[in-house]
Amino acid sequence: MSTALVANGDVAAGKPAMGRVASVYSEVQTSRIDHALPLPSVLRSSFKIADGPVSSAAGNPGEIAKLFPNLYGQPSAMLLPSESDTAPVQKLKIGVVLSGGQAPGGHNVISGIFDYLQDRAKGSTLYGFRGGPAGIMKCKYVELNAEYIYPYRNQGGFDMICSGRDKIETPEQFKQAQETALKLDLDGLVVIGGDDSNTNACLLAENFRVKNLKTRVIGCPKTIDGDLKCKEVPTSFGFDTACRIYAEMIGNVMVDARSTGKYYHFVRLMGRAASHITLECALQTHPNITIIGEEVAAKKQTLKNVTDHIVDVIRKRAELGYNYGVILIPEGLIDFIPEVQQLISELNEILANDVVDEGGLWKKKLPSQSLQLFEFLPQAIQEQLMLERDPHGNVQVAKIETEKMLIQMVETELEKRKQEGAYNAQFKGQSHFFGYEGRCGLPSNFDASYCYALGYAAGALLHYGKTGLISSVGNLSAPVEEWTAGGTALTALMDVERRHGKFKPVIKKAMVELDGAPFKKFASLRDEWAIKNRYISPGPIQFIGPASNTVNHTLLLELGAHA
Amino acid sequence: MSTALVANGDVAAGKPAMGRVASVYSEVQTSRIDHALPLPSVLRSSFKIADGPVSSAAGNPGEIAKLFPNLYGQPSAMLLPSESDTAPVQKLKIGVVLSGGQAPGGHNVISGIFDYLQDRAKGSTLYGFRGGPAGIMKCKYVELNAEYIYPYRNQGGFDMICSGRDKIETPEQFKQAQETALKLDLDGLVVIGGDDSNTNACLLAENFRVKNLKTRVIGCPKTIDGDLKCKEVPTSFGFDTACRIYAEMIGNVMVDARSTGKYYHFVRLMGRAASHITLECALQTHPNITIIGEEVAAKKQTLKNVTDHIVDVIRKRAELGYNYGVILIPEGLIDFIPEVQQLISELNEILANDVVDEGGLWKKKLPSQSLQLFEFLPQAIQEQLMLERDPHGNVQVAKIETEKMLIQMVETELEKRKQEGAYNAQFKGQSHFFGYEGRCGLPSNFDASYCYALGYAAGALLHYGKTGLISSVGNLSAPVEEWTAGGTALTALMDVERRHGKFKPVIKKAMVELDGAPFKKFASLRDEWAIKNRYISPGPIQFIGPASNTVNHTLLLELGAHA
Repeated sequence: MSTALVANGDVAAGKPAMGRVASVYSEVQTSRIDHALPLPSVLRSSFKIADGPVSSAAGNPGEIAKLFPNLYGQPSAMLLPSESDTAPVQKLKIGVVLSGGQAPGGHNVISGIFDYLQDRAKGSTLYGFRGGPAGIMKCKYVELNAEYIYPYRNQGGFDMICSGRDKIETPEQFKQAQETALKLDLDGLVVIGGDDSNTNACLLAENFRVKNLKTRVIGCPKTIDGDLKCKEVPTSFGFDTACRIYAEMIGNVMVDARSTGKYYHFVRLMGRAASHITLECALQTHPNITIIGEEVAAKKQTLKNVTDHIVDVIRKRAELGYNYGVILIPEGLIDFIPEVQQLISELNEILANDVVDEGGLWKKKLPSQSLQLFEFLPQAIQEQLMLERDPHGNVQVAKIETEKMLIQMVETELEKRKQEGAYNAQFKGQSHFFGYEGRCGLPSNFDASYCYALGYAAGALLHYGKTGLISSVGNLSAPVEEWTAGGTALTALMDVERRHGKFKPVIKKAMVELDGAPFKKFASLRDEWAIKNRYISPGPIQFIGPASNTVNHTLLLELGAHA
Repeated sequence: MSTALVANGDVAAGKPAMGRVASVYSEVQTSRIDHALPLPSVLRSSFKIADGPVSSAAGNPGEIAKLFPNLYGQPSAMLLPSESDTAPVQKLKIGVVLSGGQAPGGHNVISGIFDYLQDRAKGSTLYGFRGGPAGIMKCKYVELNAEYIYPYRNQGGFDMICSGRDKIETPEQFKQAQETALKLDLDGLVVIGGDDSNTNACLLAENFRVKNLKTRVIGCPKTIDGDLKCKEVPTSFGFDTACRIYAEMIGNVMVDARSTGKYYHFVRLMGRAASHITLECALQTHPNITIIGEEVAAKKQTLKNVTDHIVDVIRKRAELGYNYGVILIPEGLIDFIPEVQQLISELNEILANDVVDEGGLWKKKLPSQSLQLFEFLPQAIQEQLMLERDPHGNVQVAKIETEKMLIQMVETELEKRKQEGAYNAQFKGQSHFFGYEGRCGLPSNFDASYCYALGYAAGALLHYGKTGLISSVGNLSAPVEEWTAGGTALTALMDVERRHGKFKPVIKKAMVELDGAPFKKFASLRDEWAIKNRYISPGPIQFIGPASNTVNHTLLLELGAHA
């Protein structure tokens, strides 16, 4: 395998914790660096910005208006072809920050901003805040130049400037952000993040406006979970690549299941708050069973219901001679089951206040429904609930390996059915968790182009003096040149939640809609997938040739572009 | 995503448990079906077969000669270009069987045999024995025609005819095989399998010869573990693809580790008997720590030694500001540690004969070294050793999640060092097991071509009346057209082992050689990888364009073709 040495600014600066330190790149990584990215045609020549109609909010517009007196109601901005460039001739000082978990394509958003500035506002400066929003507050940054950015083009990860989970929330923290903006004389700031980070970006935009700072703020939609989206922002970046990576693995496991003929593979997939990843992977691969958290919640299903459903399918398949299969489970399943939430909060209460005796007398304090559920859980899970607590003494729900729990519950239930004479085959469960390996893959061509356009448009929006918008690239089922670009008022995405007696603005997470096209398509096919084997193996992501420029099912179906 | 409907013989036959039943293929799968496979030039035009010198055995030639009186000493066969085809004009009846675990490329071996027969022995018949060697014994087969084979070309899995783990061992079983050979009037049989299956293939060849059957037997080297190889058979098929799939995931996890900066990822990889997969993945990705089972065994390391080594590296990295990393562990690690083997056999003894009291008095029966090791193990592993037993009451070593065990031991050890003031950072371990997802991936171009050539050559060897050979394709670091093809006497690969007072022939598993080029290259670089971050992300397997035709490190280094 041929390799290429790629160094970056960190080497010279001797900074150990950041950046690609004299990395030896693989052949594929190297080839991706120089992959020429297509831009939507509107971004390739002269354009102007056209404002849309006055905007409202996703809910409670009155409260949102009070929270954002300067920004509420502002129109979206659309980039349109123009005879000549209408942006002011001006050098800009722009900052960029990555916020929250990794998603493939983050580096391309930054490349897009950088290239916009190089192309359209020569002499501009781009600062990368290090380690997430904390980098803004502590004014920890690096100046990004062409050489620095080069090795990160079309590469996975967030390590160019790294990310962080801090929030800019308190008056003190807003003051720190103002100081940084003043110190660096920032014209603009691009916040690349999920729902929370984009809410935060809008608060920052409002705050800078109130304080009469010139610094504008533009958000970019990032999260592999796919739960930050709306009409104007059809998808969040990283979702496409992560799903393809998981679907590759699922497809392989399916072929293995069919070849071996003796295992049920229980695959847990990332996505705690929403089940978009699980749904997309199901549409790509056709598993026998797919659990969608939103459906479980809507139907108020219990853990017993979920188990029984799986057992019923396994039983039916056994009758057909299939003692193997593949089952997809969203990471957040447990959070969608009301009775489990109930049990956990009661356990937290008991464990905080009572002595837990070995004889199990403490269990009498559990209401009967919760006690029944507790007794239904496999012993290992019972122990995990009792023993593994976070520093506040609470049950660590995130640590529960749902796929293993389900395997044990299914085993127990099948054993019962065996004794009743309703099942007489052999069940062997294999557990998988596909998580981290999907967050930092090389971005698919879709994510690479989408992110580059998001960044390029963010640069344009700042150049035109826009603030409080989220970069919006649309018409994504068409070829890249036909994509649209612009910005959507972040306040238009917001609603309020009551917290500690105050209204807090939130961009609501986009959940799987049970009457949306992707779920309906899945629901219309799943009975067939359950019994017949319709497995699809998507194979590894291709960068050249067949399947290298496809659009994922969720996006196509939501855009109505799929049969 | 565009899709193509592909059906196969099973649909018509209404057989539910086998084959690709009206599968909807992904775009990549579809594109692979029609991928034109290059053949070594010697296989593309007329050839003759030249015999090499008389062969010997890998060890104890006298005993091997006694076990294979008809086959011992036969020369290897080399296919050489010739003016005209020298094979007899003859229709052949050939059977093929897949034996043991899946490996990417198995379907291409079958395609290769089929195409040979089509090209060079028109009117021949190819039977696929279903479900492994049991299919031979029970005469359970399907006649493979062009239509049947088509959807499996260049596809992963073994589901065209499925595989099995039965062995043909007893006189009764050999008789069943003879009956099938006679019933189907077989001229030849190709056995696709690992070391055991190829030993079996040779016994079958000898048996058919003794019984004066015309049926010849040729083996093919299959195993993702990479432990069936020798000078004439430079690699087993599937190893290349599986390593690339694992390396893709490892590379992604590395980028994640560097971006997040707070996790140590402990990655367990398939490969119980030998650590070739772990070594190849290390050469492809440059992890901070790689445990090679053969080295652990050679240095007689204890679990404490392994833990201390990991802890030392973590401590050094913490001093440099790196509190993250990636650690590769072979699945079979525990089997390489003598003291663990000792403990397990003592536990088996105690648990079989004594009462295990809750107070732990039973532990006094453990010799002090084993007791010390037992107490050193994390509690969860202690419990697993005591509770999870196979039907014979033995500890289930395979069920121990080595990567989780090491995380816990490292945690405990770091806590100690913290208290001694020798470490003051935070350690967070994340565990991964990359296994099943690598066995059934779409074969890489290398495996697709290699398998096709192996199958094509196997067809030729049978056509020329050869038996007891393993299909051998060489010169693999050169372009495909320059590859060599032929067959090697299976007896030349064999030694004997004493079992139940008798000599049994075995093809010895090829272990990682500590003085071999791959390990030496790794050993020369690992100290640098430990401290500096030299991560490489190989990215997904590409079928077109950059990196689509590379040869893996192990093979290149063993062939001396690597700098």
